Amino acid sequence: MKDARRLSRRSVRSERRLFLVDGPKAVEGALGSHAVLHEVFVTAEAQERYADLLAAIPTDVPVRLVEPRAMASLSDAVSPAGVVAVCGLLDVPLADVLDPAPRLLALCADIRDPGNAGTVVRCADAAGADAVAFLGSAVDPHNPKTVRASVGSLFHLPVATAADAAAAVTACRAAGLQVLAADGAGEVDLFAAEADGLLAAPTAWLLGNEAWGLPPELAALADHRVAIPIHGRAESLNLSTAAALCLYASARAHRS
Amino acid sequence: MKDARRLSRRSVRSERRLFLVDGPKAVEGALGSHAVLHEVFVTAEAQERYADLLAAIPTDVPVRLVEPRAMASLSDAVSPAGVVAVCGLLDVPLADVLDPAPRLLALCADIRDPGNAGTVVRCADAAGADAVAFLGSAVDPHNPKTVRASVGSLFHLPVATAADAAAAVTACRAAGLQVLAADGAGEVDLFAAEADGLLAAPTAWLLGNEAWGLPPELAALADHRVAIPIHGRAESLNLSTAAALCLYASARAHRS
Repeated sequence: MKDARRLSRRSVRSERRLFLVDGPKAVEGALGSHAVLHEVFVTAEAQERYADLLAAIPTDVPVRLVEPRAMASLSDAVSPAGVVAVCGLLDVPLADVLDPAPRLLALCADIRDPGNAGTVVRCADAAGADAVAFLGSAVDPHNPKTVRASVGSLFHLPVATAADAAAAVTACRAAGLQVLAADGAGEVDLFAAEADGLLAAPTAWLLGNEAWGLPPELAALADHRVAIPIHGRAESLNLSTAAALCLYASARAHRS
Repeated sequence: MKDARRLSRRSVRSERRLFLVDGPKAVEGALGSHAVLHEVFVTAEAQERYADLLAAIPTDVPVRLVEPRAMASLSDAVSPAGVVAVCGLLDVPLADVLDPAPRLLALCADIRDPGNAGTVVRCADAAGADAVAFLGSAVDPHNPKTVRASVGSLFHLPVATAADAAAAVTACRAAGLQVLAADGAGEVDLFAAEADGLLAAPTAWLLGNEAWGLPPELAALADHRVAIPIHGRAESLNLSTAAALCLYASARAHRS
């Protein structure tokens, strides 16, 4: 229990290769996926309420009854639902998601807000992307807020991590993907690119930090820098809405 | 000062028809808009740092120097930037944004998360929408988190409020707009609708609550219920990414 609580820290997660899966929806997502459950903590009340869910947990996974107070220390939710699983980390090396070559990838470089990151994963899942990669100094995809914001999608598609963002871009291009940087100052208009057939090729979308975007030297490594047209007076779009527009434009191009 | 602090409460904002505009970017947005500034609070440090901004404030608007501690009580930002303006509420009656009839509207029904609401306003601005309306039990568009998440867009386009969501939908249709409900279970596919020319007409997009969507009786009042295709295993998209996809699909249809 004390060991599980320490998994709220990224360094402990990385060292022990474990993270916390909080709430019945997320635990259900983990159960229906390749994720490896190590143990489950549940309150008496949740044990009754989520009996069906708990019945689906493999018999070799220990289910431990805990007091609501102890549960609150495991969960960062405002109202903990009373069920938290300890699960093996999901991330794979980038090379694993590049062989065989995917059709559509989302590359999150230096994304810092865990909620944004989870929303991008959810979006990538919805748009039919093959995988998401977290590059450079991006937030840990196993951050509790990221897991929650992904609403199960973290368990639906492969998630890769790579510390060297530039090397990751090079690896994507070597695998036959074009890399398109989402960049408000980009030289290509997203929807013109869609109309011109530029999006038909297998694509990795390179998305930058929510506040300061992509470092110019990283954006320069992409095949094109693509801007979403701004018709009103907004200076830019937020990260997850920009990701949705780019990924769905590719999905349309790939399916038309 | 004490009066200003009370504006963190919605009931006080509604009664006094005033709200707080927090941070130099937001104050700059207010200055370049139809918003009416009543007074400005600034710390000594911010007075120096944002001298240009403060110089642009009309001379009949009092600028009051406050201690950092008092500033912290006015701002709900983690690190207050040291400048907060008291400003007249921005919302107008729905009838005002329907005459003359707009081409593109976003109707936010019962949206509760202030951050989501602000992101929708930012998106609507970027997509070139003519206005945004907050319907039913939606969050107050003047909520500090909404103002912040809109990144200035709250000052860029008219924002209407209407307590009766059903009457608002009827009013939009009477003004010659088709009303399209964004609805994961909708009978029309968003991108098929775009290809078929359905989006060419002036449109009000009806967006529902982030957790439970649109009440069926409200969705039934729309001309069509439109679903964004989900290609992967996500159950749905989050509200602001769905709004971005719908509004930009209309923007493309209106500009092609």
